[in-house]
Parts: sequence; structure tokens; C-alpha cells
Amino acid sequence: MALIDALKWRYAAKKMNGQTVPQEKIDYILEAAKLAPSSSGLQPYKIFVITNPELKEKIRAVGFDQSQITDASHVLVWAAWDGYSLEKISAVFDRTIAERGIPADAMDEYKNRLWGMYEPLGQEWHANHAARQAYISFGIAIAAAAEQEVDATPMEGFIPAEVDKLLNLSELGLKSVLVLPLGYRDANNDWLVNLKKVRTPQDEFITEIK
Amino acid sequence: MALIDALKWRYAAKKMNGQTVPQEKIDYILEAAKLAPSSSGLQPYKIFVITNPELKEKIRAVGFDQSQITDASHVLVWAAWDGYSLEKISAVFDRTIAERGIPADAMDEYKNRLWGMYEPLGQEWHANHAARQAYISFGIAIAAAAEQEVDATPMEGFIPAEVDKLLNLSELGLKSVLVLPLGYRDANNDWLVNLKKVRTPQDEFITEIK
Repeated sequence: MALIDALKWRYAAKKMNGQTVPQEKIDYILEAAKLAPSSSGLQPYKIFVITNPELKEKIRAVGFDQSQITDASHVLVWAAWDGYSLEKISAVFDRTIAERGIPADAMDEYKNRLWGMYEPLGQEWHANHAARQAYISFGIAIAAAAEQEVDATPMEGFIPAEVDKLLNLSELGLKSVLVLPLGYRDANNDWLVNLKKVRTPQDEFITEIK
Repeated sequence: MALIDALKWRYAAKKMNGQTVPQEKIDYILEAAKLAPSSSGLQPYKIFVITNPELKEKIRAVGFDQSQITDASHVLVWAAWDGYSLEKISAVFDRTIAERGIPADAMDEYKNRLWGMYEPLGQEWHANHAARQAYISFGIAIAAAAEQEVDATPMEGFIPAEVDKLLNLSELGLKSVLVLPLGYRDANNDWLVNLKKVRTPQDEFITEIK
């Protein structure tokens, strides 16, 4: 399916039917999420893939009781770095250098300039910037799910501190940012499925400067 | 092209060749960007499409002199709302009601609950939250460009306050967040084009909880 048709097909399913998304489709969506670009290629986030029923129940309880969290077969959680450090940045750059087979010092200047810029901005700015990168990956994962005709309901509506506890994210230097249940729409019981998709009109959304 | 192949094909072109992207591909990418989901469907951002050569030069000057800004045929700028207000939220909900042909008061409860939650969070939180929604659209636009074999270089590296001035964004209650030049790679002169795409290894990026 062309991406544009997939995006027209998709919507934020309000009711899912419990059917399991095949593993190859999950892998495809995760691969797309991983291929997302990020600032300086740092990919400052990880994805948790939750199929455990008890854990899904617990997330639903801190996710405003949204039923898709338990009716989805897989619940993805994007967890972003809670801050940048020279050590974390160096680890990414070292891997890039190794995989590209370029000289060990080839990225030193760039790395030092980047850290010189990031360090004074402080941890709150860092965490916010890392979270924003996760949104790019999230957008691409939503597109990939739609292309695979898998329903995905984008969610910011949960208590991050509680999800952090459930996944022990603090110990890992991470903060939960976004949740994406993957499953299949229950078309007979979803109030939203037949309502028109509404977007900002073109002339209001786009400004051309020629 | 399947999305996953498109995402493998794409990279952040460092040198573009000045060739013009056909209008139908630009329209496709903008349509995909517009179809992106956003929190409560507010779409709290607009996209500026800049083809004017002088303006591209000026943006390049406040964009760390990145050559893609002038070598791209089209430069997209995502500009997010600088804050939420009951008036702005009502305008979106009123349009949704009209387009869906549902009762005028059908969304009142939801709207009032949303504003009750947003109002105390303050304008800085609002602007950040609106900006994050733009990142979802940005990710989807990057995917759509790749599917169309159009090169796109994601950019946060510019001085937002200066771009705001160039586009008179303050008057419109907007702040520039992201820039995406669209064009074609100059494969003979781009140092990045043949370097391996590096991503976090799967076992580090993904944590499964079964």
C-alpha cells in the first residue's frame, strides 16, 4: 500500500479486538522505528515491546484505563535518555567509527563541538531534546504500522513516572515518553472508526513563499 | 517502494544538486505531513514551503551555512503554536464537529477537560508540547519523501528566533521548530552518501517483556 493510502486508512483505534499481530509485522515496524533519523545520529531512546498480560494491565491502570493497552497484542513504549553525557555520546560515535572503518579520531572534533554545545544546556533540556527525537521514530513507526495494515493508537496519555517505575527506567537512565499499542481495530465496537478524518484545511496548513 | 526499503535508501544528504522536485511529489509529501496524528487532533503547527531563492539564502545564513538549504528546491519549515488557548482549541473542535456532522455540543466535555488540563501547565509547556507534535509530522514527511525517492535532510541546526523573524512567525503565534530541505543528492560530492548507515544494535535498542 502506498504510504499516503496507508495514512488515510489509519486512525487512532479506540477499541481493539485482541487479535495478535504476526511477529514479522512487529519486526518490520520496529526496524522502521530504528531506521528513523535522529539529531547527530545519537538515537537517544530505546523501545520496550510488551506482550506480558500482567504488565499490560498495570500500564493500562496508569494509562487512563485505555482499553487498547490490554486489547493490543504488543504495546511499544519509547523511553528516551534522561540526559546526554560525553560518555553516552562517545559510545555512539565509537560504534559509528568502528562500523564505518574510519580513523579513530575522525569524529573527535564534531563530538567535542557537540558536547560543548549540549553540556551547558542542562539535563532538563537534554531530556526534552532526546524525547523529541523519539517522536520522529514514533511517527515513522505509525506510518510503518499503517503500511502493514496494523492498527496503532498513539498515546501520550499515561503517567510517565508510573510507567518509568513499572519498567525500572530510572536505573537505565531513561524516561518513558510515548506508548503505541499495536493490534487490530474492533470495527463493530469502535465509535471512531466510521467518523470522517478531519485535518486542517490545506490553505491554512500550508504557506508557500515563492 | 516499500517503506522499509525507502528508509534504508534515505540518508541525510549533505550535498544536494539543485535539481527541482516535481510539484506532485511535494504535494504528496505535504499531504503525508498533514495526515500525521497529533494529540487530540489539534495539529498545533503549520508548514511553510519556501522556494524563494533570496529567502533560502537568508535561512541558510542563520542555519549554520548548510548548503542543502539553498541547493534544495523546496525548504519546509514546521512552525508550531507558541501556546494553546481555549479559542484555538475550540476552533479545531468546531471544525471537526462541522465536518463530521455531529451535534454542536458533542465535544464540549472533552474540550473543557482538555483545556482544564492544559491551562495550568503554562505557555512554555504548551509550546513544547505543540513542537513535539510537529516532530511526528516531520518523521512521516521524511518517510514519504524517501518513498518518493526525494532526498530530505532533517535539520534542527538553525537559529529559531532568526527564522521566526524571517517568516514573521511571532505575529502568527508560531515558533519555528524544524527545517527539511527537499531535493536530490549530489552523489559525486557528498562525503556521506557511501558511508554505512549505523544504528543502535537490535538487542540494545529493543527490550522485549514477555
